[in-house]
Amino acid sequence: MTELSSQTVTQDRARILARRERLRALARSRDLDAILVTSLVNVRYLTGFTGSNAALLVRAGGTDVLATDGRYTTQAGSQAPDVDLLIERACGPALAGTASQSGALRLGYESHIVTVDGLAGLRAAMDPVGSGTDLISIGPAVEALRSVKDTDEIRALREACALADRALASLIAEGGLQVGRTEREVGRDLDNRMLSLGAESVSFETIVAAGANSAIPHHRPTDAVLSGGDFVKLDFGATFAGYHSDMTRTFVLGRPADWQTEIYDLVATAQRLGREALVVGASVVDVDAAARAPIADAGHGPAFSHGLGHGVGLEIHEAPALSALGAGRLEADMAVTVEPGVYLVGRGGVRIEDTLVVGTDGPDLLTMTSKELVAL
Amino acid sequence: MTELSSQTVTQDRARILARRERLRALARSRDLDAILVTSLVNVRYLTGFTGSNAALLVRAGGTDVLATDGRYTTQAGSQAPDVDLLIERACGPALAGTASQSGALRLGYESHIVTVDGLAGLRAAMDPVGSGTDLISIGPAVEALRSVKDTDEIRALREACALADRALASLIAEGGLQVGRTEREVGRDLDNRMLSLGAESVSFETIVAAGANSAIPHHRPTDAVLSGGDFVKLDFGATFAGYHSDMTRTFVLGRPADWQTEIYDLVATAQRLGREALVVGASVVDVDAAARAPIADAGHGPAFSHGLGHGVGLEIHEAPALSALGAGRLEADMAVTVEPGVYLVGRGGVRIEDTLVVGTDGPDLLTMTSKELVAL
Repeated sequence: MTELSSQTVTQDRARILARRERLRALARSRDLDAILVTSLVNVRYLTGFTGSNAALLVRAGGTDVLATDGRYTTQAGSQAPDVDLLIERACGPALAGTASQSGALRLGYESHIVTVDGLAGLRAAMDPVGSGTDLISIGPAVEALRSVKDTDEIRALREACALADRALASLIAEGGLQVGRTEREVGRDLDNRMLSLGAESVSFETIVAAGANSAIPHHRPTDAVLSGGDFVKLDFGATFAGYHSDMTRTFVLGRPADWQTEIYDLVATAQRLGREALVVGASVVDVDAAARAPIADAGHGPAFSHGLGHGVGLEIHEAPALSALGAGRLEADMAVTVEPGVYLVGRGGVRIEDTLVVGTDGPDLLTMTSKELVAL
Repeated sequence: MTELSSQTVTQDRARILARRERLRALARSRDLDAILVTSLVNVRYLTGFTGSNAALLVRAGGTDVLATDGRYTTQAGSQAPDVDLLIERACGPALAGTASQSGALRLGYESHIVTVDGLAGLRAAMDPVGSGTDLISIGPAVEALRSVKDTDEIRALREACALADRALASLIAEGGLQVGRTEREVGRDLDNRMLSLGAESVSFETIVAAGANSAIPHHRPTDAVLSGGDFVKLDFGATFAGYHSDMTRTFVLGRPADWQTEIYDLVATAQRLGREALVVGASVVDVDAAARAPIADAGHGPAFSHGLGHGVGLEIHEAPALSALGAGRLEADMAVTVEPGVYLVGRGGVRIEDTLVVGTDGPDLLTMTSKELVAL
């Protein structure tokens, strides 16, 4: 049990209502009568409801409506007391019908979430009414709102990161990272430590990559045994109240060879430059470039084969993407990872990753584990 | 390590090719030049490739093409040696372009998977070619193929079920289910036993529901403490080589009260009738009804608030649905769960669930743990 239990964390309803007000303002600005939210994680963000079947109707004027099925009647009432409740298995179509019946002429919907068949289902649910409601794409508008975190979200992210920090510290202190263990054993050990400390779940399948496997950016733990001289790369996270932490650290088992120190220092420098580039107003492309420059200068450009980082929150990957292919600028209170890596095929690789929150006084570092090269 | 390691299980390529041949036959029967498969799990089923970004083009005539991104070039070559490989980040659009350029006039696609924006992306990828390729929905055709399992799949399901059986047996033998532990502790203990025995992962978040919580069909483990006299309901599974097992058992901590014995026996009878109704050619609605009848007769009809069961395989829930809302008939080698339950709000509930394979000589039971009422 942690001090903040994920089951009892109080989310200020005013903050949840403020999220819906921002979406309502967007509806009005686009002349929409209502917006139908069918992404489950977006429904959670906008209501606090965590059930596995739901949709939400946010109205330009009037009370919002949450639809879910009979399994969740009680839970929805308690988690989302400030919306009307509609109990219906086919949540999206049911709310499209509700919107249509109440005279909505322009209904926003999430065209990046709704499938082609799902759109036909929405239309069919409105047809009997014959009201001529138009479905208008809002695209990932709720995801854009989600990219800027409020106080409750930053608190949950901070706790999720602290759980991961503490789990790693105890793993190392108790000799969990040692020659002779398998990647899989280390991974399960780390996962259990996060769960024992109060994590709701792990953020994603923990990566433990030893020796040459550390050169594989996304390696699933195997029965490979940790050996002296190996790089060991750990990429892992905990969730707390639905929010995900994400951190990577790379260690050396024994005395580091020169090539290991060299690429470690290079990645550490790139990572520092990436963190320093997290400035309100910076273009995400420029942030990526800032960290990429020293790696390219050292001739390892092609060995940094992924983007610099990504937003993190209710999902492990969310907006913004810090990448040459990304778009847009950083805003205060965006939570992002900074995770450059250099991977030398057949030899080994290093990635160093933090989760941070962008702020006007510089970024707020949530993952506190040291980034010095630790030889175990 | 188990005898059959999930990392090394050999999938007979002939069986994988046979899956694609069935889809190719479907393409021909619908006069399609090719089918674009964008569901990741369907791509895995048809190729063996397990990466997290992929799409597959199955051609009525000609070599099939698997698209994935640069992270997976090596893995795709080794897991799917019998397809052409296209390395491109936007896999679906890239293959739509390939199909279009090679003159396909009618291209099948998965309209229940492709989003509205995704469909626009497919169209845009074909437009520059100006070939006038039509996109034709095939709906969940691959899921329909997947509902009937081949020998490799049944072997993997059998192993997944055996892992869950063995984990539960060791939990009970070593006193893991006892008064004073929390639901969460029991759940993690059971999960760790499955993983130690060689499970790739757990099939879903393990349900441990004690006392009145057992009346909640899908209860997340909490810090509630197991007490004497409680029902304890465990719903859990292991994955092996991608295939999911699913089993529920309900125990009593101490001597069962009369009402507990009564609803346990009722659910056990319903479950037996459900298993006995698993006959090739039976309508899924009738199978559901067979198990529901004794529960309704006992006046507990409304307390059995979900369908009888579901197909299980590469996903935990897949076709067919054994439910009053389902459709179709059972075929040999369909793998399904049979899981009636009675839930008495505020008191407690019982669910008993097996995973079985439908066969001409009666169903093949994969989950072997006893279904007698065990008082611990």
